[in-house]
Amino acid sequence: MNSPFPTVIIENVQPEIDHGRHPIKRETGDTVRVSADVFKDGHDILMVFLLFRKKGSQKWNRARMTLVNNDLWKGEFQVGENTRYEYTVEACPCVFRSWQHEIRKKHQAGQDLKSELLEGRNLIRAAAQRATAKAVRDALEKLAKKLGAAPNQAAAVELAVSPESTDRMDCAPDRSLATQYERILEVVVDRTCARFAAWYEMFPRSQGKTAGKSGTFKDCEEHLPAIKAMGFDVIYFPPIHPIGKTHRKGPNNTLVAGPNDPGSCYAIGSGEGGHKAVEPSLGTLRDFDRLVKKCRELDMEIALDFAINCSPDHPYVREHPEWFNHRPDGTIKYAENPPKKYQDIYPLNFHCENYMDLWKEMQSIIEFWISHGVKIFRVDNPHTKPVAFWEWLIGNIQKKNPEVLFLAEAFTRPKMMRALAKAGFTQSYTYFTWRNSKPELTEYLIELTQGPMKEYFRGNFFANTPDILHAFLQEGGRPAFKIRATLASTLSPVYGIYSGFELCENKAIPGTEEYLHSEKYEIKVRDWNCAGHIKDYITRLNHIRRENPALQEYDNLRFYRADHDNILFYGKAAPDKSNLILVAVSLNPYQITDGFVWAPIGEYGIRDDEAYQAHDLLTGHRYLWRGSRNYVRFDPRNEIAHIFRICRWRKRENDFDYYDM
Amino acid sequence: MNSPFPTVIIENVQPEIDHGRHPIKRETGDTVRVSADVFKDGHDILMVFLLFRKKGSQKWNRARMTLVNNDLWKGEFQVGENTRYEYTVEACPCVFRSWQHEIRKKHQAGQDLKSELLEGRNLIRAAAQRATAKAVRDALEKLAKKLGAAPNQAAAVELAVSPESTDRMDCAPDRSLATQYERILEVVVDRTCARFAAWYEMFPRSQGKTAGKSGTFKDCEEHLPAIKAMGFDVIYFPPIHPIGKTHRKGPNNTLVAGPNDPGSCYAIGSGEGGHKAVEPSLGTLRDFDRLVKKCRELDMEIALDFAINCSPDHPYVREHPEWFNHRPDGTIKYAENPPKKYQDIYPLNFHCENYMDLWKEMQSIIEFWISHGVKIFRVDNPHTKPVAFWEWLIGNIQKKNPEVLFLAEAFTRPKMMRALAKAGFTQSYTYFTWRNSKPELTEYLIELTQGPMKEYFRGNFFANTPDILHAFLQEGGRPAFKIRATLASTLSPVYGIYSGFELCENKAIPGTEEYLHSEKYEIKVRDWNCAGHIKDYITRLNHIRRENPALQEYDNLRFYRADHDNILFYGKAAPDKSNLILVAVSLNPYQITDGFVWAPIGEYGIRDDEAYQAHDLLTGHRYLWRGSRNYVRFDPRNEIAHIFRICRWRKRENDFDYYDM
Repeated sequence: MNSPFPTVIIENVQPEIDHGRHPIKRETGDTVRVSADVFKDGHDILMVFLLFRKKGSQKWNRARMTLVNNDLWKGEFQVGENTRYEYTVEACPCVFRSWQHEIRKKHQAGQDLKSELLEGRNLIRAAAQRATAKAVRDALEKLAKKLGAAPNQAAAVELAVSPESTDRMDCAPDRSLATQYERILEVVVDRTCARFAAWYEMFPRSQGKTAGKSGTFKDCEEHLPAIKAMGFDVIYFPPIHPIGKTHRKGPNNTLVAGPNDPGSCYAIGSGEGGHKAVEPSLGTLRDFDRLVKKCRELDMEIALDFAINCSPDHPYVREHPEWFNHRPDGTIKYAENPPKKYQDIYPLNFHCENYMDLWKEMQSIIEFWISHGVKIFRVDNPHTKPVAFWEWLIGNIQKKNPEVLFLAEAFTRPKMMRALAKAGFTQSYTYFTWRNSKPELTEYLIELTQGPMKEYFRGNFFANTPDILHAFLQEGGRPAFKIRATLASTLSPVYGIYSGFELCENKAIPGTEEYLHSEKYEIKVRDWNCAGHIKDYITRLNHIRRENPALQEYDNLRFYRADHDNILFYGKAAPDKSNLILVAVSLNPYQITDGFVWAPIGEYGIRDDEAYQAHDLLTGHRYLWRGSRNYVRFDPRNEIAHIFRICRWRKRENDFDYYDM
Repeated sequence: MNSPFPTVIIENVQPEIDHGRHPIKRETGDTVRVSADVFKDGHDILMVFLLFRKKGSQKWNRARMTLVNNDLWKGEFQVGENTRYEYTVEACPCVFRSWQHEIRKKHQAGQDLKSELLEGRNLIRAAAQRATAKAVRDALEKLAKKLGAAPNQAAAVELAVSPESTDRMDCAPDRSLATQYERILEVVVDRTCARFAAWYEMFPRSQGKTAGKSGTFKDCEEHLPAIKAMGFDVIYFPPIHPIGKTHRKGPNNTLVAGPNDPGSCYAIGSGEGGHKAVEPSLGTLRDFDRLVKKCRELDMEIALDFAINCSPDHPYVREHPEWFNHRPDGTIKYAENPPKKYQDIYPLNFHCENYMDLWKEMQSIIEFWISHGVKIFRVDNPHTKPVAFWEWLIGNIQKKNPEVLFLAEAFTRPKMMRALAKAGFTQSYTYFTWRNSKPELTEYLIELTQGPMKEYFRGNFFANTPDILHAFLQEGGRPAFKIRATLASTLSPVYGIYSGFELCENKAIPGTEEYLHSEKYEIKVRDWNCAGHIKDYITRLNHIRRENPALQEYDNLRFYRADHDNILFYGKAAPDKSNLILVAVSLNPYQITDGFVWAPIGEYGIRDDEAYQAHDLLTGHRYLWRGSRNYVRFDPRNEIAHIFRICRWRKRENDFDYYDM
């Protein structure tokens, strides 16, 4: 490339987030599809290349892009490794192809091409001079000679425009007028777990069997096989660190704790240590290590909470008072959201003078737990710390440990949620819990999976959390839990439940979404086989997800027509269409709901008059459908959803060879 | 600003073209409205400022932006001068306002604020220390003292949250955590003629009175008052330079010219000179100067064609053979679009080795004509020269001569047309001639005036050109000319006709859009008062445009419902709503067309039950309308359009003071 000014215009490269300010996200094994508007003055034929490489490599790989229409070009490349990749676009007028095009037209018009053919030979000779490999040089020189020796114009043109000539010339392309797109774009390639996983949130201290006595990591170990059996991949623990004693909260967030109250695990730090220690009542760090190992054996993994809160007893308060905000009387400011006070929590000041010491200490916490086998961190309230800090932290961690994933627990305004995802969070909590009606779900899911957010924001759909027990669950009973489990697990490939969901626990503090007797402040002992649980149903859902690649993708969701306001109908197809899933869910947990749904048989290549099979993976029932419009009926006493695998009959008489004979 | 990392996120600043790569366009006197997404971690109250300045100035002006909703902020500034401006956004957490908010809430909750009030005094004292003006410092110190001396908490809070306190603190703001948007954006502010003008294209050589004899600049002078009377502002001349003799084209683009054929004025250059000379048969450069002066006296101006074509006789061919493309036999390549050949034209090679000499010579051509009083250049086929060249050229010219306007005659693919506008062309030709049906016109005009293009692409709507006589005009007769004149002049504030349009000339080479006996190759003598002309109609249109500010704006176009496929109904309102124009046009030049149109009375603040006046500015008729839906009828033998000015009755009984007494 040595043109002193850009010769080709390359614009609107997609995907690109905020003009390349932030990377897009993909998972290992993905194909990155890139498009760009590419054009040039005049009538030259263009060669357009997608350049890509692992970040850090100096050498670009090159893939030819193809013209779609209206100056839009498309190309793609594979991302195989869990690391960062880079891509950009290069374009160049191809003098040889333009010349081929010219002589073809002129020859057809019967014009004399003496001068043009001389020009062509000069182009080929110039290519031979550019060639670095002798074989290429020789072949091109031979081609030039052969062109000169052609017996007549027709033969010369035929040779000149032949694919062989083009191929030879492509071995020594003239890139002197090439233009490279002005930015290099990045892809963060995560392991597939970033996109496809079922999460199970549980408080370790509630895994015991004795009321009032803290469960331990050992109790967790015992519970693991049951969770594995339900089909979960990630076990997420709220903070496991020593809990502060000063201003400890009592049951239901009361201000004064009794002597046996365990306190909120979000008030981190005590005489027993801070963020790099474990709460003694749960066991030892060695117990934790054993639990991590056990998880790994079961092909599960542990996600830890990263909550940057310090109780007044946290070692940082003594060791680094300069990291906190101080009041004029010299005391440290506790957290507030006026008029609410959180006297058991001191926030850290990320803007403090020696902020880099603080930031590095935060990094060391993550590194500490990585060294103990943790590779997933669920970050508490990231929207109350600077976005610049997260970008710095996640970037630093993933440079050494690209396998580490971060989930942003930011329930805040939409633009901040997007900003955190752009800054590097692997996954994000969403508004899913508050989207219950058909228009709400449709609009929100289209925003997440079809718009610009799909490039960088992976919604992890929690059906409930320790803070959110939605009225739909409080009031809709067992069918409501099944509805929400179905939606969470099939709308998004990454989803989760917080324990108790499978038992349909639905007691809230009246008028709120808070659990009554929340585990945040109390130790809970549950009957894991209580009447009315939906463990079998959840097991089934997770099994279906695992068996069907279509449900493991994020941006392949499409909504289809259902002639009832309370029936949501949507589908997902595997990229190669080998797996076609249609989901019909009743959004009404109270009444029988029925109506027609319209299967996208056109998209699936099924003819209007063709019979095909809709196999309900929830019940095992098979239906023979014909045409797009088909009937469904849901009874809250039985099933509230169908998850259909759509199968064409594999053969017809005219698919056999003999049919054409 | 001294935070080592961005504390506030500033995104999605609008308007912004390709992330600030290109400037937006405005005209003198405009208000530039800017919006941005601005947010920060935590709960701080933000102060957001729009920074703006004339380019070259070091000092920013600051205008407060206001929160609309959902982290979206808006602000505006005026651009008074014909020059470039810059703008960007700055945001900062306002510690004092956040503190005010906090104490207000806590005081309402009955909390003790001893510590908070001490904090506040510290904030005020810190501001006093920051203050550079003694008066400000004194006032702040006084405020701190007064706050300390407040008799009780209520009085202290009242003083602290008072607007006076806020105003004082605003005199010495704490900008230590301010973040400035990462880019500085530009506005090209053109003179208003860039947006609002009526163009008239004519061949000077056709302004004579004797068949076969070239008209002259003096003949043009004589014709000026008639063109002025029709209401045109800009007279545009195709090239006026010496025409080459080698391979000169004959009538109707035939290959061989007769001895008296004048040739195509686009084959520029002969023994008499090149782009800085005038064709001798038109007169002298001095004649041209006098014509320019005459135009100025009539408050009109001349636009010249800038066609970078050289005839084989152009002085450049001799003086700068290195600027041209050569064939292997040493001859210069003429222009081709295989199998078509343009032997009378040599294109210049903008990529040649000493390309900067060539580029500078092109600049000197423009500068030459600027020195002769020309301020508007219509550029021929800019899409066959590098976009980078145009960006360089227009930027250089407008740096010294911001009053100079460039119109891009690029009839090419849409993305190239947009790229040229982004690169700096003041105005652009459009696809308007090929948009004749209601859906075509609606879709295209919405794209131009409502989408991102409105920021940088000003369509100059020519109703015809020497190259385009659309079938609609060829076949629709006089009513078709009136329809297209109405559309061009009311859909876009800048529009034009090519002479002969007002005479309804409609003879084409069969099967093409080319004029039969095109003026491009022949001298024409017209009867300017021939039967069936529409000069009065065009005069009326131009008069209406001049009298109604709503028709002088570009992006205020809105389409409204008309219950007929061949009635187009649209409106324009002045920014302050003082002038409301509704246009109803029949798109059918053959039949009587009638139906209902739906006036946007809601937008105009007219009640459903209120009578209002629709004053047809074309005929002078007045209609009394009530409600949105009203009847219109068009007869091709009479009028084919209404241009209504909508007037509410100025007063009702309850608009008078006594009504409320």
